[in-house]
Amino acid sequence: MKLEYTLIQKSKRNSARLGKVKYGDKEYPTPMFMPVGTNATVKTLSPEEVKETGTGICLANTYHLWLKPGEDVVNKAGGLHKFMNYDGPILTDSGGFQVFSLANAKDITEEGVKFKNFENGDTLFLTPEKSIEIQNKLDSDIAMSFDECPPASANHDYMQKSIERTIRWAARGKAVHSNPNQMLFGIVQGGYFEDLRKYSAEKTVEIGFDGYAIGGVANDHESKEHVFEEFAFSTKYLPEDKLRYAMGIGDPIDLIEGVIRGVDLFDCVSPTRLARHGHAYTMKGKINLKNSKYKEDFTPIEDDCDCYACQHYTKAYIKHLISCDETFGARLLSIHNIRFLHRLMANIRDNIKTDTLEEYRDKFVREYYGDNYEIK
Amino acid sequence: MKLEYTLIQKSKRNSARLGKVKYGDKEYPTPMFMPVGTNATVKTLSPEEVKETGTGICLANTYHLWLKPGEDVVNKAGGLHKFMNYDGPILTDSGGFQVFSLANAKDITEEGVKFKNFENGDTLFLTPEKSIEIQNKLDSDIAMSFDECPPASANHDYMQKSIERTIRWAARGKAVHSNPNQMLFGIVQGGYFEDLRKYSAEKTVEIGFDGYAIGGVANDHESKEHVFEEFAFSTKYLPEDKLRYAMGIGDPIDLIEGVIRGVDLFDCVSPTRLARHGHAYTMKGKINLKNSKYKEDFTPIEDDCDCYACQHYTKAYIKHLISCDETFGARLLSIHNIRFLHRLMANIRDNIKTDTLEEYRDKFVREYYGDNYEIK
Repeated sequence: MKLEYTLIQKSKRNSARLGKVKYGDKEYPTPMFMPVGTNATVKTLSPEEVKETGTGICLANTYHLWLKPGEDVVNKAGGLHKFMNYDGPILTDSGGFQVFSLANAKDITEEGVKFKNFENGDTLFLTPEKSIEIQNKLDSDIAMSFDECPPASANHDYMQKSIERTIRWAARGKAVHSNPNQMLFGIVQGGYFEDLRKYSAEKTVEIGFDGYAIGGVANDHESKEHVFEEFAFSTKYLPEDKLRYAMGIGDPIDLIEGVIRGVDLFDCVSPTRLARHGHAYTMKGKINLKNSKYKEDFTPIEDDCDCYACQHYTKAYIKHLISCDETFGARLLSIHNIRFLHRLMANIRDNIKTDTLEEYRDKFVREYYGDNYEIK
Repeated sequence: MKLEYTLIQKSKRNSARLGKVKYGDKEYPTPMFMPVGTNATVKTLSPEEVKETGTGICLANTYHLWLKPGEDVVNKAGGLHKFMNYDGPILTDSGGFQVFSLANAKDITEEGVKFKNFENGDTLFLTPEKSIEIQNKLDSDIAMSFDECPPASANHDYMQKSIERTIRWAARGKAVHSNPNQMLFGIVQGGYFEDLRKYSAEKTVEIGFDGYAIGGVANDHESKEHVFEEFAFSTKYLPEDKLRYAMGIGDPIDLIEGVIRGVDLFDCVSPTRLARHGHAYTMKGKINLKNSKYKEDFTPIEDDCDCYACQHYTKAYIKHLISCDETFGARLLSIHNIRFLHRLMANIRDNIKTDTLEEYRDKFVREYYGDNYEIK
């Protein structure tokens, strides 16, 4: 079964949109946050826990699964859903981001990217065709085109050459895409140059995909403003009836600002990574459970949170687990942090309905950052 | 509410016994295996998962909780049950075993044991009274007397002096025990000397406890035969209407041989520790999921196992998780391994009912060890 996206409502004041994703007999509202299961597991969580937090689409990483256990093993297991026991929709990335960020000795040519396996030093070669073939075998519900992801600091000249190649790569990937149940997304790059984002978007749309991602936005930027503008530079030139996905974005304020600029989907490892470092999101800002002030704090992380961690455990207990390196601590915080982002998205959707998202953003920023953030 | 033990049936051929432990409106059959939650968490598992494997009583370690977060924190949290969200019965050890096995620079006097905190080097002093006071505050359902646990190699002379002191310590601990809802167990020591086990048992029973443990059996022994004989040397002199608990014992064959010799309760970290190393129990012997032969093995760990791991995941997936250091792998194996020991105990209980436990032991040994084990 193939995912179907329906646009339901558009804001009159900004680019925010409500929609839904249909997946067999399941339906999930957008905008949506998608947690990341790098190695076909959302770190420390069971698939049931991932779903109980309110997750719809969940990610898995093509690069990692290609190297271990290999796409053929996953394919023989019956695809990713069966392999990892997750019956919700799964999105796989293209492997491109990891090749550019994790792998050493990369050598980019028109054909593809040569790089070293970070585990054993083997030389590997990833091409647009290979990426799609791997994703076809993994049998995810959304596959991503293989793109180059240049640093935000790349100049106009480099960025232009890069997006031209990424557009050619997108066309090559689409040509070999052969999984009829799998959506294929194109990726808009172009950094902080509106003309390049426009060109990249238009050319990618010309090729024609089931949805469009905005890449390069999770790279280091001069300011968050630049990231937010890149959202706008991209969504402006994308068709309204397709999903738009900002890759690698998970900071709460980025989700709100992204939605205001017309983004529907976000993913990030931050909720689970922060959890492993003892941090919890709250509507009043992030807290660090390692702090000694929580030693005898017998209240939940957030009083009004409905997650499993907040319903059954105190900060004192979670602090104790974290200080003992007990993985159940990271698990409770992962549950809370993912649930937090889903609760935030639900607030965002509610405020799209009433077209009050900008007021909500201002209120959220005041409560989350206190005086440490300038409201734009 | 206080635990109640009832003896239900005794074997006519050996010392095996069926019984039950009543805990409020819950009832658990004995003999029983008890998983260990050292830091008030069974490693990698939620309390719900611990219960779903079929666990009745669960352990927590006094030594660890005394040092972190401290018994006063647990007490202020409302006791161990509330702190860790476990509503089944909880047994705490005395801290003695950890003082003797983990702590350095120990200095044993009549008063107690002086030793260094393994985390920060502080000098600490644990006495029989202090151990009971800590356990009273932790509010477990079964507290253990503070005992010396000498090595199995200790000579008759040392062992005799040690058990005399352990008996005096038991009386001192009982004198300060003040938690009316908590059972207090005495501990039989005496190594591989039947006269000392007899003396230790009789003197400990004279003081009078709610149940009796057999200590020193998890230490290094010349042979398993010696361990099994120590079970018999101890239970022989213990009252029939009280629980008998072999401390630190979890190897499947030891459980069977222990029950044959009249033991009701066992605990061990082995199911969760083995899990973290990628090992799984099966009725046909332990397997190591790191082995490459499982890479494309899309069958469960055990076909006829009803645990969550076997119902939903393949060896190939668990192997993948273990090889990626994903904690969900250790969690699935922990669930399986604890469930395995509970299934084994259920088989043991069934065979007590029909008084065929020795035949079951012989069959189990053939299937579990193959030709690598001599049936005694």
